[in-house]
Amino acid sequence: MLKRVLFLSLFALSLGTINAQSITGFKAENVSEQLDLEAAFEARLSTENLDSWMKRLSAEPHWVGTEYGKQNADWMAARFKSWGYDTRIDTYHILFPYPKVRELELLGDQPYQAKLTAVPVEGDPYTAQGDALLPSYNAFSTDGDVEAELVFVNYGIPSDYEELEKLGIDVTGKIVIAKYYGSWRGIKPKLAAEKGAIGCIIYSDPEDDGYVRGDVYPEGAFKNKTGVQRGSVMDMPLYPGDVLTPGYAATKDAKRLNREEAPTITKIPVLPISYEDAQPLLAALKGPVAPESWKGGLPLTYHIGPGPAKVHLKLEFDWKITPAYNVIATLKGSTYPDQWVMRGNHHDAWVHGANDPVSGMIALMEEARVIGELAKQGKRPKRTVVYGAWDAEEPGLIGSTEWVEDHEKELQEKLVAYINTDGNGRGFFRAGGSHTLQTMVTEVADAVIDPQTGVSIKERRIAAQMVNGGNDSFNLSALGSGSDYTPFIQHAGIASLNIGFGGENAGGEYHTIYDTYPHYKRFKDPEFAYGVTLANAAGRMVLRIANADVLPFEFKQWHITVEGYLEEIMKEVDNKRKTVEKHNKLVRNNAYQLAADPRKPFKKPEPKDAVPYLDFSPLQNSLEQLRQSIEQLEALSLETLPLKKQEAINMALQKTEQQLTENSGLPRRPWFRHQLYAPGFYTGYGVKTLPGVREAIEQNQWKEAQEQIEKLSQTFLSMDAHLKKLISHAE
Amino acid sequence: MLKRVLFLSLFALSLGTINAQSITGFKAENVSEQLDLEAAFEARLSTENLDSWMKRLSAEPHWVGTEYGKQNADWMAARFKSWGYDTRIDTYHILFPYPKVRELELLGDQPYQAKLTAVPVEGDPYTAQGDALLPSYNAFSTDGDVEAELVFVNYGIPSDYEELEKLGIDVTGKIVIAKYYGSWRGIKPKLAAEKGAIGCIIYSDPEDDGYVRGDVYPEGAFKNKTGVQRGSVMDMPLYPGDVLTPGYAATKDAKRLNREEAPTITKIPVLPISYEDAQPLLAALKGPVAPESWKGGLPLTYHIGPGPAKVHLKLEFDWKITPAYNVIATLKGSTYPDQWVMRGNHHDAWVHGANDPVSGMIALMEEARVIGELAKQGKRPKRTVVYGAWDAEEPGLIGSTEWVEDHEKELQEKLVAYINTDGNGRGFFRAGGSHTLQTMVTEVADAVIDPQTGVSIKERRIAAQMVNGGNDSFNLSALGSGSDYTPFIQHAGIASLNIGFGGENAGGEYHTIYDTYPHYKRFKDPEFAYGVTLANAAGRMVLRIANADVLPFEFKQWHITVEGYLEEIMKEVDNKRKTVEKHNKLVRNNAYQLAADPRKPFKKPEPKDAVPYLDFSPLQNSLEQLRQSIEQLEALSLETLPLKKQEAINMALQKTEQQLTENSGLPRRPWFRHQLYAPGFYTGYGVKTLPGVREAIEQNQWKEAQEQIEKLSQTFLSMDAHLKKLISHAE
Repeated sequence: MLKRVLFLSLFALSLGTINAQSITGFKAENVSEQLDLEAAFEARLSTENLDSWMKRLSAEPHWVGTEYGKQNADWMAARFKSWGYDTRIDTYHILFPYPKVRELELLGDQPYQAKLTAVPVEGDPYTAQGDALLPSYNAFSTDGDVEAELVFVNYGIPSDYEELEKLGIDVTGKIVIAKYYGSWRGIKPKLAAEKGAIGCIIYSDPEDDGYVRGDVYPEGAFKNKTGVQRGSVMDMPLYPGDVLTPGYAATKDAKRLNREEAPTITKIPVLPISYEDAQPLLAALKGPVAPESWKGGLPLTYHIGPGPAKVHLKLEFDWKITPAYNVIATLKGSTYPDQWVMRGNHHDAWVHGANDPVSGMIALMEEARVIGELAKQGKRPKRTVVYGAWDAEEPGLIGSTEWVEDHEKELQEKLVAYINTDGNGRGFFRAGGSHTLQTMVTEVADAVIDPQTGVSIKERRIAAQMVNGGNDSFNLSALGSGSDYTPFIQHAGIASLNIGFGGENAGGEYHTIYDTYPHYKRFKDPEFAYGVTLANAAGRMVLRIANADVLPFEFKQWHITVEGYLEEIMKEVDNKRKTVEKHNKLVRNNAYQLAADPRKPFKKPEPKDAVPYLDFSPLQNSLEQLRQSIEQLEALSLETLPLKKQEAINMALQKTEQQLTENSGLPRRPWFRHQLYAPGFYTGYGVKTLPGVREAIEQNQWKEAQEQIEKLSQTFLSMDAHLKKLISHAE
Repeated sequence: MLKRVLFLSLFALSLGTINAQSITGFKAENVSEQLDLEAAFEARLSTENLDSWMKRLSAEPHWVGTEYGKQNADWMAARFKSWGYDTRIDTYHILFPYPKVRELELLGDQPYQAKLTAVPVEGDPYTAQGDALLPSYNAFSTDGDVEAELVFVNYGIPSDYEELEKLGIDVTGKIVIAKYYGSWRGIKPKLAAEKGAIGCIIYSDPEDDGYVRGDVYPEGAFKNKTGVQRGSVMDMPLYPGDVLTPGYAATKDAKRLNREEAPTITKIPVLPISYEDAQPLLAALKGPVAPESWKGGLPLTYHIGPGPAKVHLKLEFDWKITPAYNVIATLKGSTYPDQWVMRGNHHDAWVHGANDPVSGMIALMEEARVIGELAKQGKRPKRTVVYGAWDAEEPGLIGSTEWVEDHEKELQEKLVAYINTDGNGRGFFRAGGSHTLQTMVTEVADAVIDPQTGVSIKERRIAAQMVNGGNDSFNLSALGSGSDYTPFIQHAGIASLNIGFGGENAGGEYHTIYDTYPHYKRFKDPEFAYGVTLANAAGRMVLRIANADVLPFEFKQWHITVEGYLEEIMKEVDNKRKTVEKHNKLVRNNAYQLAADPRKPFKKPEPKDAVPYLDFSPLQNSLEQLRQSIEQLEALSLETLPLKKQEAINMALQKTEQQLTENSGLPRRPWFRHQLYAPGFYTGYGVKTLPGVREAIEQNQWKEAQEQIEKLSQTFLSMDAHLKKLISHAE
């Protein structure tokens, strides 16, 4: 059946090509040449390469510092070279902890020693590689040896601690056990420590990615009772990258912090466990029954505790400076060698990483191969194309972060855009990033055919949006964190994208020993149809940016999006005010107490401070000023200008994203400089848009909120000044 | 602590008495006498009686036809007599099935024989009464012996079959397994049979009332793995009561239908089971994984099937004509003996029934005792008070229905109002019923003190409403079905109420062998504080209706409520129209297909017929006419009229509810005559307001909807004519 659909898709594609009228950034007379190039590019993409490369790259575990990881880097570098790329390996020397001691036991009458080991399964020999498999742990947990009563804290996110507060439960001096999900995992120990806990256990509840979701591995894709999700818990919302070299490159001889003072290592020991190991711990808890929404899928009554269950947790790590190998492959541009477009994907994995990251890595490689091949045939891109294969992404975006910190000035001078990929699945096109690139991405999504349905990936995604109650427009999501785009966009101010496919490949293999080639082939993208589609989409983006007459940045849609964020925030303040007013009325009327069951724990809520009115007019005025400038810009039709003017405009366009950063960064985290997008301080991966203002409001810091409004309006004004200069180049 | 609160409550009560200014229906000069009477009534209520009577009534299983049930009836009759009531036992002869054969087995490689028996538990000797306990079954399942593949249908309600339809799954010739809850249980086999299934299994998922909700019996209140919910599955939305005598009394010599033609016996065999018995059956299913919202709390992946699990279900019942004993106790009114107010609660239970129904029954008895005692002291109510203890409620509201059918004419002539109670718990005051009584109920709720908090039961309930996001007004809910008010209000057109306390007594004992005295004392209303509070609330209502100068019906609030229902329905039609339009657009655009995972089952949805515009003006106009009449009535201040006029007005007031019934009843179910309230044809207990119109719309019967609009507007017009006549009595 797939064959038939592929045939259809080629048919639909050629129709698309014939009917295409324009591409943003291209002179009318250059459009068909570009489309021919893209068609030639697409025609050369091969699923067979993807298949064999996945087998090669995921054959053995290859976390940063492993011999196989180094071999993979060398092997990829050799491939890039053979495809005509100037290739080098940039090495950084980073702190990486390897687990030496991992002990967790339930004490008391019915003691239990946690197994902490996932079992090999039939039909998947990779899972039986024994000692070669990285023991399950959370990287950048501190060492620790603690013993205390256990408290179940649901996902361990701020709203959960509010609930505990209502019940009068304090985690001070306790060990918390939290479910995975609900936030990025690093938030859980960070918040637990802030609340006074002395240890943190994170487990995978079957409701989130185990048998509740579907059959478990090897019958199905989901997590069996022994599977454990590894993962970093460094305080990435503060800064990602090497914990000892914040803001600068971890070169061999760099000055390093002492480990004891590294602010992004957790304050308390933290260990991930399976649901098999979690069950006896949870079953031994008494105290209040957990709220309805906290309950997971284990066959027991979820109690909160504290205790009587007492646990002992002991963790020791081998803290070693470890080399991380970034493969950097460059294809110099024929016309504008000093304007770059960069693609990246990490190559390190927690274990085999067939899905994460290899499925994205091989799509990037195939894309690079064909672009190299076309270059050899005389179709070299006008601008320089750079491919990066990052190491040490898993422990904390380390390879990419150190590289960006190392090359920051050059990147800010030359790099037009960075396009990131990571693990890739099956289903719907997903794209997030700088909203100045939304039009370009939309046009590419319109040109790329979905392998399963024969319509464009844009049409299929919009269909899904609408069936799920959404609208019919294609929008980029805003980027928080979770992959290597973070240093590019949020630190260096490079316009960035993160793209991939998903929605039809759910499973529980993420960061476990079950993320293997056999698992991927059965449950993700069995014929690599979406692998080549990703190469197709990303490659077209690269080729359009590389060959455009005018760089395809667009500001009208960007402005609408930013205005939308502001409206959201203003509404949030109003809602917050109403919620506080209602809360205080209920407190005054004693309603909470009257509504509470006197036989259950209850702490009378305190009245809350009233929410003041903020002055949003600086943002409204600066955005209005920007709107007018953008209108002027839109009227110019840059594609028809003379070459010299276009070149000057391109130089300016390339730096527009940098106008959105401020060197002082965000409050309490200067590394994060972007004023429109940041990972949430208490969500981790989840994005906060207009983060300075939004997070101050969320945390009731009203004075800071007003200051951030001022600061952000200055950002908008410098963006406006930049656009005005850009417009002057056209005149 | 309870003692202190009780003291507070008495204090608050006396304050309330002093400050009270008026009671609806009472002349100003009669108010303080009434309040003194109510205070005397309240002061005599004893929790000790409740405690000892619960022990007595729930000592042995006492479903209809048991020896102990008969003894209970005789014992209660003797009590009523001793309190000064004219007491008789009205006996009906009803068809009642007793389970002879119950067999359920999973066939195939890993066969499983269902145990079908709940285990005795430590600390509760009642659960160890062995053969005296009624085997778990669904009364009015048909006999059957079927073998087929199993299909999991979630709750087995209409929306679930829509979901199955989307997945292309047909239950024809299959046996379905459905979870309890989501609707009244009788809907499940009814709908399954309509869809072509040949058998039906209903099980209690731990998510709904087992370990997911809380600790299980005997540690906690919830259902352990062996507990089974019994219950009737007769097609009560068609008509309740004896299946062989629809619409007339099941007297000894009544003409009876043949059992084979009785329309309310199920078409397919149906059996309830525990989650211990359900687990192997569900685990043996394959096919698509159930949708997210279908998943329960068992530690397995919920698949839908059909099969490969095959089951064999064999059921045989002993279909016997069985005597049902209603205890009827009458205290003749001093002034208006031919105007009655009636209270009722059933006395039969599935097993011991400490909560259901004994906890309500004992409150009714204590209320009757004190009213009898006061009468002996010369404080006899002006109107006649009747207490009913119904038999055979559990199998299908049979005792009350036969009695109402038997005495219909007399009740329509004399009965002012019927106030029902059933199992009672702890927490918040809940009241549903005729909205003409809303003002009276609100005033009583304002006068009765909550035993746990010392505020009025109205204030506590409103506090809970507000904390849960609701408003601050006290409203009666509309009555669907599920207890003995149904024949009174929905068949005979008697103004009715159903009241009780709950919200802090959740458990899984309902209709199981665990609904015992020890369970009740630990988890429901341990000190019978809410038992006497229920007696207090219900008794005050009885005394107010019995002694009022003008019967306390009120129409302004009633009118607002009815208008609200109409607005709801009009909005529903509009929403339905929009939904269909959106659906058809998605079908036209092929969006459902594009959004579907090609590797999963999917059936392309068909376009739906457009929703026409209905003419609601007959309802709007008749309600406006009513509004004007009610305004006139409100202006009259009936309490100040001369006695003769008041008596004429009372005669008319007493019959207002009957104006809201039509002899032809609802479409396809003439037994249900009320035009404002009915149990849903496909929800069972759940109410449908303005049911003729609403259900026609829900089922896309547009012609019928318009006819029902006409019919309902005629009902409103006859209500209007009645009120005009009533007004004329005042002039």
